[in-house]
Amino acid sequence: MKKTLLIVSALICFGCQQAADQPAFPDGTWLDLSYDYSSETIYWPTSEPFRFDTVFAGHTEAGFYYTAYQFCSAEHGGTHMDAPIHFSEGKKSVDQLPIEQLVGPAVVIDVSTRALRNPDYLVSVDDIRLWESSHGKLADGQIVLLKTGYGQFWPDAEKYMGTAERGPEAVAKLHFPGLAPAAATWLVENRNIRMIGLDTPSIDYGQSTLYESHQILFEANISALENVANLDKLPLQGAYVIALPMKIKDGSGGPVRIAAWIPPGNE
Amino acid sequence: MKKTLLIVSALICFGCQQAADQPAFPDGTWLDLSYDYSSETIYWPTSEPFRFDTVFAGHTEAGFYYTAYQFCSAEHGGTHMDAPIHFSEGKKSVDQLPIEQLVGPAVVIDVSTRALRNPDYLVSVDDIRLWESSHGKLADGQIVLLKTGYGQFWPDAEKYMGTAERGPEAVAKLHFPGLAPAAATWLVENRNIRMIGLDTPSIDYGQSTLYESHQILFEANISALENVANLDKLPLQGAYVIALPMKIKDGSGGPVRIAAWIPPGNE
Repeated sequence: MKKTLLIVSALICFGCQQAADQPAFPDGTWLDLSYDYSSETIYWPTSEPFRFDTVFAGHTEAGFYYTAYQFCSAEHGGTHMDAPIHFSEGKKSVDQLPIEQLVGPAVVIDVSTRALRNPDYLVSVDDIRLWESSHGKLADGQIVLLKTGYGQFWPDAEKYMGTAERGPEAVAKLHFPGLAPAAATWLVENRNIRMIGLDTPSIDYGQSTLYESHQILFEANISALENVANLDKLPLQGAYVIALPMKIKDGSGGPVRIAAWIPPGNE
Repeated sequence: MKKTLLIVSALICFGCQQAADQPAFPDGTWLDLSYDYSSETIYWPTSEPFRFDTVFAGHTEAGFYYTAYQFCSAEHGGTHMDAPIHFSEGKKSVDQLPIEQLVGPAVVIDVSTRALRNPDYLVSVDDIRLWESSHGKLADGQIVLLKTGYGQFWPDAEKYMGTAERGPEAVAKLHFPGLAPAAATWLVENRNIRMIGLDTPSIDYGQSTLYESHQILFEANISALENVANLDKLPLQGAYVIALPMKIKDGSGGPVRIAAWIPPGNE
């Protein structure tokens, strides 16, 4: 009976105002899956890098301290979200994605052992099936995060994506893992995932020229998270991911702040 | 016994992988508390307005559809977060705020009846005490949202903040409600809130010249959410707010996407 009461009160507490001595959210821990934006942030070789300008910083004539900046960014640099319209005509822009599509239970498919040996690694249907053989069939609504291990090289562009050169001629020198188009097709046809993400600059691998995984996923309204940080700290199953992009009207994507909530016992 | 089982299974479900027929997050609804960014977005009269440029939009020579943009923004326009360093030297910048400080139970203090009659309205200690007389003492860690009612005027700058004019001379023409400095001091000295926000452009009212509520709150490491949307749809108590700002290194604030999770029975 004592145990039942404990469970009942734990449940009630979840939806009610917290008492002063309780944590603000249900027990558990939060993990930040976003890199910061600065002049060090990795952008696609053809994108303008992040620009950060001081509007004012210091003490005003009126006597108080004040600091403010302004900035410029490509939509698809740093930790960002690709909305379906990025590669699929007529599909949703980033501001049109409802919160329900940005939040959900997350799984991590760890291919880092194989991917770190081969910067052109393509995550395959077999990789997903291998995960399922240990964890069960990918349930509906999952946010699938591919851990290639390349996150450890951030922000060293040469190690992270094969080249630190910039400009159109650098694109052919990109080498980093991505999702095989066949695996994208398999996910769309056989599973019902909410979103996908990975710890490289693009859901298609660096040597892609047609960006077919983008095309396949976005046609099916599955958005992608790119340059996701801290995947090595996330449990393979059990976390909830909350990925809130900057709400740019008609945007094809944009900076996204990704928080993962790890319930107790899932750390 | 049946009821106990139901409660136990509901609790277990919260921390585990969802079955295919269950919602992705615990039951409840999500509400978007952010406005989108476009040329219509309201910025402070002295800030550069939002700029959105096309990088590419249409069919590529390779045959696939592709669209991408880049943008520029002041940190403090649209739905945004002020980090403590915005008005308090040496305090945290927006990238330094841990997720735990950005997430928590939220209350809405509705002063709209009085504020809509007076665009220079200052939310007072009495307003907070009146809320407490109905809902109990503000618990530690709350995100306090002030509902002035001015959100209904967005994006009409003249109605929303008193003037649609731009430039330094327009600042004196700003009229919109804010938090009284005395109430900011009272909150800092007597309560232990996590964050504050409101449905106007600034936590200090439009006629402020010294921005004292900013100074008082930020000195105490209490960040502020400004131009918060949809406060009229949020329950006065019971929601959780997840406010994830763009992670701008050394930023004094920035665009923030705010999601509110409303547990069942709190709509």
